[in-house]
Amino acid sequence: MSTPLRIVALAGSLRRASLNRGVARAAVELAPPGTVVEAAYIDDIPLYNGDLDGATQPPGVAALKAKLAAADAVLIVTPEYNYSVPGVLKNTLDWLSRGTQKPLKGKPVAIVGASPGYFGTVRSQTHLRWVLDVLQARNMPQPEMIVPLADKKADADGNLTDEETRNKLRGLLERLVEWAARFPKED
Amino acid sequence: MSTPLRIVALAGSLRRASLNRGVARAAVELAPPGTVVEAAYIDDIPLYNGDLDGATQPPGVAALKAKLAAADAVLIVTPEYNYSVPGVLKNTLDWLSRGTQKPLKGKPVAIVGASPGYFGTVRSQTHLRWVLDVLQARNMPQPEMIVPLADKKADADGNLTDEETRNKLRGLLERLVEWAARFPKED
Amino acid sequence: MSTPLRIVALAGSLRRASLNRGVARAAVELAPPGTVVEAAYIDDIPLYNGDLDGATQPPGVAALKAKLAAADAVLIVTPEYNYSVPGVLKNTLDWLSRGTQKPLKGKPVAIVGASPGYFGTVRSQTHLRWVLDVLQARNMPQPEMIVPLADKKADADGNLTDEETRNKLRGLLERLVEWAARFPKED
Amino acid sequence: MSTPLRIVALAGSLRRASLNRGVARAAVELAPPGTVVEAAYIDDIPLYNGDLDGATQPPGVAALKAKLAAADAVLIVTPEYNYSVPGVLKNTLDWLSRGTQKPLKGKPVAIVGASPGYFGTVRSQTHLRWVLDVLQARNMPQPEMIVPLADKKADADGNLTDEETRNKLRGLLERLVEWAARFPKED
Repeated sequence: MSTPLRIVALAGSLRRASLNRGVARAAVELAPPGTVVEAAYIDDIPLYNGDLDGATQPPGVAALKAKLAAADAVLIVTPEYNYSVPGVLKNTLDWLSRGTQKPLKGKPVAIVGASPGYFGTVRSQTHLRWVLDVLQARNMPQPEMIVPLADKKADADGNLTDEETRNKLRGLLERLVEWAARFPKED
Repeated sequence: MSTPLRIVALAGSLRRASLNRGVARAAVELAPPGTVVEAAYIDDIPLYNGDLDGATQPPGVAALKAKLAAADAVLIVTPEYNYSVPGVLKNTLDWLSRGTQKPLKGKPVAIVGASPGYFGTVRSQTHLRWVLDVLQARNMPQPEMIVPLADKKADADGNLTDEETRNKLRGLLERLVEWAARFPKED
Repeated sequence: MSTPLRIVALAGSLRRASLNRGVARAAVELAPPGTVVEAAYIDDIPLYNGDLDGATQPPGVAALKAKLAAADAVLIVTPEYNYSVPGVLKNTLDWLSRGTQKPLKGKPVAIVGASPGYFGTVRSQTHLRWVLDVLQARNMPQPEMIVPLADKKADADGNLTDEETRNKLRGLLERLVEWAARFPKED
Repeated sequence: MSTPLRIVALAGSLRRASLNRGVARAAVELAPPGTVVEAAYIDDIPLYNGDLDGATQPPGVAALKAKLAAADAVLIVTPEYNYSVPGVLKNTLDWLSRGTQKPLKGKPVAIVGASPGYFGTVRSQTHLRWVLDVLQARNMPQPEMIVPLADKKADADGNLTDEETRNKLRGLLERLVEWAARFPKED
């Protein structure tokens, strides 16, 4: 029996009933065979401050880095605020780019995003790819997955209930598994 | 005697000795005749969380909004993190876009940014304009002002000491005064 | 009787039955009172080549520059190719940025774009604003106008037939008239 | 003896003495052992026009597609016009995204760019990655290679003479060989 592939689904929102947190939770439920998907959140990541960025980093940052470093692949679930990546998620990415441990460097990454509007995060996904390139992540080019009108596809707690969207998410995770095979962790 | 034009110089970094905070302080010292320039910081802006974004907003957000609303023009001083606007500054802009009071809407805004590298925030300035358009700020198209190699132009506390850069900053503020005349506050 | 405000509607596509050319033609028909709207096309703009960019410029470029220079305001109608401004339109903008006559510098500009997809050029509009900032155009921040599913809003020749979209376009032109008043041509 | 890896170096400028054409030629000379690098140009690519984009495509487009399809990896050499990819190069990429043959889909691609300014195409490289993602190319995340002050690193014909830059270019090609190994052509 081989070790399952570990995927972390990182949700870029702090709101409890966030649609994007719901997508991360759904990813856990939809883990393809041979994988384990674990959700991760940015609740414990403080505002980036160079004065706090020394030999040690804040505990929330260190914990997230450890979790991501242990993963074989990452799914980033991004909202869109003002046509780009939310400040809170960009702030997390800024932390991840600092220090000696850079867990997204060389890491296979897929992107998904949900919004209540018609455009479903297409602009923040463009911005997110731009940032992830700098962090030297291995962005999966395709498929793109956007979730427009997401409030109609989730319940009041943000749980993703729409079956078609759940199927797409499962498909995205399956593609991520294939993509990850090109970039084994020992690289 | 006419009322002086009020300019707020908003620095997008939390680090005490930040070069960009130093640029904001220098802007205060270099206020053109007929203006008052006041520095503003993002230290009291929490991470954006929709659950905190209701009829009232966090005190730090409300205070910054009041200060910006009272201004005739704004200078935003942006670092560059990972080729775009720092998460902490984007986070502030995300707050400013929320709620009933949107202080950057219709506001004349100029941009400057400092970095220790050769490219001096050119990429984060592109991203910042993109975001400010969404907030319906009145971005001044020109001049662009970048401060590359900024650590060689400031002292250890981040005070902007380079005379040429200070002169450029004075010129930028003068252009902002002209630009602001097109968008009087009563609009 | 005052001179009418002159607006040029520049369509960024070469295809005869292009939806975006249709939007430019519709703008001519929907000219607000006190304005004349004239359509302009990029058919005679050659591929940019620095070797052709001397004291004189190609006749098609010179003609478009003259037309734009005589305008009080410009409406740019952009398709979206590969999530950004079509090469053919970017090529025109590259020519407009060269030489001694830079007709978009200081010019009030509004943006609209049509596409058959759901996202209706939102990404190319972001890119277009970015480029127009460099050319020192005076981009109107709002309203944004996108025309998704445009093939269902036009006839087979690309004529814009959808009444709701035509009304929005009329409104956009009215806002452009107001915006242009801030930037009179003698500036 | 194994077949050499075929790399095409595509230069995004039409000017004869272009610095970027010079970089493409230099890439030919600096082909790493086990590779053949061939330069390609966009001189025969017409302005994109949907009316010309049918079952057959213009001969220049078809020829470039065939050359790229036969390559194992591609180096794109981009100038920067108005802070983004030149219209003429974007126009080529628009053609490459059309029709049944999409030669950049799945293709390992590295990026380099030269400009006479200080920023050496950093902004157009950001834009180029954005576009290449849409075309589903396999962008090499690192190293970035920019050539600022390029007119001081080339002779009057645009030949790249600067030894340090040539060494960097050789290194970039070596990295591209490694990157291409992850994406064998039969995929």
